[in-house]
Amino acid sequence: MRTTVERRNLGPRDVLIEISYAGICHSDIHTVRGEWGSVPYPLTVGHEIVGHVTEVGAEAGKHKVGDRVGVGCMVNSCRDCDNCQAGYEQYCLDGNTGTYASVDRDGTVTQGGYSTHVVVDEDFVLRVPTSIPQEAAAPLLCAGITTYSPLSHWNAGPGKRVAVVGMGGLGHMAVKIAAAMGAEVTVLSQTLSKKADGERFGAAHYYATSDLTTFEALKNSFDLIINTVSAPIDMRSYLGLLRLDGTLVSVGAPPEPLTVPVFALFGNRRSFAGSSIGGIAETQEMLDFCAERGIAPEVEVIDADAVNDAYERVLTSDVRYRFVIDIASLR
Amino acid sequence: MRTTVERRNLGPRDVLIEISYAGICHSDIHTVRGEWGSVPYPLTVGHEIVGHVTEVGAEAGKHKVGDRVGVGCMVNSCRDCDNCQAGYEQYCLDGNTGTYASVDRDGTVTQGGYSTHVVVDEDFVLRVPTSIPQEAAAPLLCAGITTYSPLSHWNAGPGKRVAVVGMGGLGHMAVKIAAAMGAEVTVLSQTLSKKADGERFGAAHYYATSDLTTFEALKNSFDLIINTVSAPIDMRSYLGLLRLDGTLVSVGAPPEPLTVPVFALFGNRRSFAGSSIGGIAETQEMLDFCAERGIAPEVEVIDADAVNDAYERVLTSDVRYRFVIDIASLR
Repeated sequence: MRTTVERRNLGPRDVLIEISYAGICHSDIHTVRGEWGSVPYPLTVGHEIVGHVTEVGAEAGKHKVGDRVGVGCMVNSCRDCDNCQAGYEQYCLDGNTGTYASVDRDGTVTQGGYSTHVVVDEDFVLRVPTSIPQEAAAPLLCAGITTYSPLSHWNAGPGKRVAVVGMGGLGHMAVKIAAAMGAEVTVLSQTLSKKADGERFGAAHYYATSDLTTFEALKNSFDLIINTVSAPIDMRSYLGLLRLDGTLVSVGAPPEPLTVPVFALFGNRRSFAGSSIGGIAETQEMLDFCAERGIAPEVEVIDADAVNDAYERVLTSDVRYRFVIDIASLR
Repeated sequence: MRTTVERRNLGPRDVLIEISYAGICHSDIHTVRGEWGSVPYPLTVGHEIVGHVTEVGAEAGKHKVGDRVGVGCMVNSCRDCDNCQAGYEQYCLDGNTGTYASVDRDGTVTQGGYSTHVVVDEDFVLRVPTSIPQEAAAPLLCAGITTYSPLSHWNAGPGKRVAVVGMGGLGHMAVKIAAAMGAEVTVLSQTLSKKADGERFGAAHYYATSDLTTFEALKNSFDLIINTVSAPIDMRSYLGLLRLDGTLVSVGAPPEPLTVPVFALFGNRRSFAGSSIGGIAETQEMLDFCAERGIAPEVEVIDADAVNDAYERVLTSDVRYRFVIDIASLR
């Protein structure tokens, strides 16, 4: 369904962006289906946005007309709390302002990137290196930073064994980024159907989780497990894969709580952690890292009319590896 | 019930210990009641053991007759795996040998410290500084190291805010040790009934968890929470108390799994971890630290005949703060 959403007038520190591409994230589906709480309809989702600056506010100096830019999962924060001051706007203690379905500091409800234009405070607008194709850059703004941040924080790199659970939109980026960081990467996917892809993305090993011998073969193996699956997993089995001081980090968000046997954490002094996107400075660092290493998501570009079909295909994991909407099809 | 348990003959690297005191740990109760799995009856429990060396094996050189020594929760490990080699015998990948109810490397079932004597490999025998009264030293071998190890690993110290959940045997030691390390300590106990004690042990703040405003008042506050309660807690509420990169470490082991809302981990990039006792070198470090700082558990010394009553009182938290059996009453 097409409709018209209002964008606020350009404020002095805002930039107006003409959107070229918007990625489809599983969060969009959770949100529009009300699985993460009530939804302020009418709502446009989308938080993997790439485009060009077409106008800048009177006091905005970070971006200029014509710049290729991106917007990710948040468009504002309090900027004053300890976390914001430390560059962790995603963990703003007052709550960051999500790119869609959030109430912004001015009282308006934010609208996402399945749209021709967006007005965003310049501090939450990223520079998108020109060496990354626009359509491929879009998913970096969520899938890229969501996996880069924990890999960076938990020191994925040479000598570290990293497992990635799930080979979807987030998972395939986790594999590419972890491999580029120098870690020894293992994919844990339901089946071996994407094994050749995983190896092409940089994985050294690939195991099927439907084969229960996997959990015996790999126990006490990993320093870090990035769980990208947004459905409950058997925590006892997965935690058992961690070696001394290993951490399992969930970046996919199941609506249901997970059941954690505490004994599984005692062995090897294991940790179970969460990580949410990244700060603005870290998101820029990620974009620059990907440009420098020649890393980009694998995308399937679709017209806006195909969004509902694409959602169904995301839910059955029938996408390699991220849908991106060509916003020209909306004009 | 009194019975006779056999100790193995003194091997070349063993020491024979005449036991003076044995602490009562909640684990003892879980074990004898079969709550942690089937039990190899007849069984003597007890893994907070202090006594004197009365005989040493031909090749044993670490301890001599007359030394005041202690034995904690484990009496052997494979000594060969990565974890043992790194000094983490508690996380032996082959499984450490528990002080009781474990099958030792020689095939015998280990028997605990509610007993007049015990034979232990010298590598698993600790030196107990004479400045600590024997009866007070006993609980250090489990309650002391179980809390010291995570406090040390997660860097409790000046500038760090540490919460201790539960003011029982483990909790009161966590308070004393964290305060001695220089951290700002908060106790989270069901009621305020032990508040004066908590402050005497070094806590700067004391809150009742039965008062639900506690969780609102303290949200985003702590770098580290040591959970000593071996019953399920509401993880959403407790995780919400952690500030950026904070960790909640469980050292009490509920038989039931805990329910963890993943969203509660996303905020502030929180972690939920487990920690199990400590390595032998670290246990010695803890004993020396406690001696140097003048820290010791608060104990109530009982005769062996009073063990069953003591168990009931442990289960109703009616002990300040650790029962210790005077083994002279067994002779």
